[in-house]
Amino acid sequence: MLPGEFELIARLCASFHQSRRVILGPGDDCAILSPSRLPQLLTIDSMVEGVHFKLNWGTPRMLGERSLTVNLSDIAAMGGYPAACVVNLALRDGLSTELLDGLYAGLAAAARRAGVDVVGGNITRASQLAITIALLGELKGNALRRDAARPGDEIYVTGTVGDAPAGWRILSRRLAAAGAPRKVLVLRALRPAARLAAGQALAKMRPAPAAIDISDGLLQDLGHILERSHVGAEIDTDAIPLSRAYRAVLGDDLELALTGGEDYELLFCIRPGNTERELARRLGVGVRRIGKIVRGRPSVSLKGRRATSRKWSKLPGWDQLRSPGD
Amino acid sequence: MLPGEFELIARLCASFHQSRRVILGPGDDCAILSPSRLPQLLTIDSMVEGVHFKLNWGTPRMLGERSLTVNLSDIAAMGGYPAACVVNLALRDGLSTELLDGLYAGLAAAARRAGVDVVGGNITRASQLAITIALLGELKGNALRRDAARPGDEIYVTGTVGDAPAGWRILSRRLAAAGAPRKVLVLRALRPAARLAAGQALAKMRPAPAAIDISDGLLQDLGHILERSHVGAEIDTDAIPLSRAYRAVLGDDLELALTGGEDYELLFCIRPGNTERELARRLGVGVRRIGKIVRGRPSVSLKGRRATSRKWSKLPGWDQLRSPGD
Repeated sequence: MLPGEFELIARLCASFHQSRRVILGPGDDCAILSPSRLPQLLTIDSMVEGVHFKLNWGTPRMLGERSLTVNLSDIAAMGGYPAACVVNLALRDGLSTELLDGLYAGLAAAARRAGVDVVGGNITRASQLAITIALLGELKGNALRRDAARPGDEIYVTGTVGDAPAGWRILSRRLAAAGAPRKVLVLRALRPAARLAAGQALAKMRPAPAAIDISDGLLQDLGHILERSHVGAEIDTDAIPLSRAYRAVLGDDLELALTGGEDYELLFCIRPGNTERELARRLGVGVRRIGKIVRGRPSVSLKGRRATSRKWSKLPGWDQLRSPGD
Repeated sequence: MLPGEFELIARLCASFHQSRRVILGPGDDCAILSPSRLPQLLTIDSMVEGVHFKLNWGTPRMLGERSLTVNLSDIAAMGGYPAACVVNLALRDGLSTELLDGLYAGLAAAARRAGVDVVGGNITRASQLAITIALLGELKGNALRRDAARPGDEIYVTGTVGDAPAGWRILSRRLAAAGAPRKVLVLRALRPAARLAAGQALAKMRPAPAAIDISDGLLQDLGHILERSHVGAEIDTDAIPLSRAYRAVLGDDLELALTGGEDYELLFCIRPGNTERELARRLGVGVRRIGKIVRGRPSVSLKGRRATSRKWSKLPGWDQLRSPGD
């Protein structure tokens, strides 16, 4: 039995610590926040049951954490600092209070870790559980914009790619895996991390790199940078960073690494002259140089042993209108 | 046939003019806004198909306008000035591009009228159409808080109440009406207005009044003020402002006026000594004094010819987990 809206919002609000930037937290028509002397970032993202998750694929706590992480990743991709969020919960019949408590606990934990105040909420009835979060952040220096890539820039990616989409396929039983690799890939899907510190470190470089988070798939998200920057790219497929778990399950098959979504790694383009080791130290995460920006139309040439020969001018990848299960 | 996400977002973005406060509009991971030297307001609200609207009850344009208006009303109830918003669209199968274009046009028109920049969007697949908007605003002076009501304050309401819930009942064929009254009530449901100017004028009064928007029903929303302010209220039912259309259809039956939702009028509590005429001139909208704040537990005494004798300590009203059609 689901409690009434008022009790649900009260419970939601009680979960969250408020920092000094919050003049008035949840419980009024709006939250009131201190003036921001810095440029502000604003983004919104949503996770819908049956599209972005299934309840039996992870714990409610993981779901709560991930619902904020996908927004934190947008702030990370701008090089910003997250500050405050509001949460819209669409609740369907048949959800237990235990589930909601787990969801709130995960959201509260992710918010605490990231220094985010949850300052307001709204609850509505719906036929699918959906968590929609709008997140406000700040820029302390330059922004990492999609339109900043220039010919000659080197293209890097943080961490490894393809793990989360492989995890989703394992969860939806379209990919077979067992043991440690299965566990690693599934957790990468259920508990993604936002590369906040890496984005903030990138924003301190001059000139500010172009960057995007890989939520829609490496090639599609690279494509967004190419379109906004009016440039092309060459990608060395042999350099694409694959985890041991990915290799154990998928070998050299790059499809999920190049076109799968939900990895939440950062892809960035910077002037040449850096080494992977130096960048990794500065960003606090492993990075791999995977190609370079070239003059020309916004298309990608794939090179390397593992490359197919085709040149994709209409980049395939992730589409939010598809679901991880597709 | 629905176009792809990228085209939909591009189309969504193209509809909106951006003001000087927008450093970077839609198309990147986040929008970038100029620093705000004023305290900020943040709110989120959602409209879900089958819960808050049905597509055959109005035009897509009305739906787009209303989806922003419900958020503007939260800013109005704080006495604030709306500034920028981000939009999450959950799209189901079977929606036409004409519908989406109408929705965007309505949203753009409402945003333009209110001086709001639509700075970002996200589109996801779902089984119900849902429009979720997070709206950022500013306070130029005091806020109208729910916890500011004091014993002796007079309780006022703007406009007339009960029209929108009557309109929803007419649309869902649970209330019979014809001619001009039907038209008036249905339009009040489909095209509500946010009382921004009235809220802003109230915020200039000293001390700042307590206020709330009547989105959940007069008694329930008054109850939120009473709970946050730790006071009680006496309401004169004979003073409840009813429109001619409401009276034509429902006569003296106050149930929808007291407990129906979605009116988006403002209820406010101010120190005694004002006249309705003077307040109406200052606020730019008709107001009616409907009662007063008293010491005691957060409950409402109903008085007057039309009052029932019961004292509601658990206030009935609107519940977002019910739908207008219930």
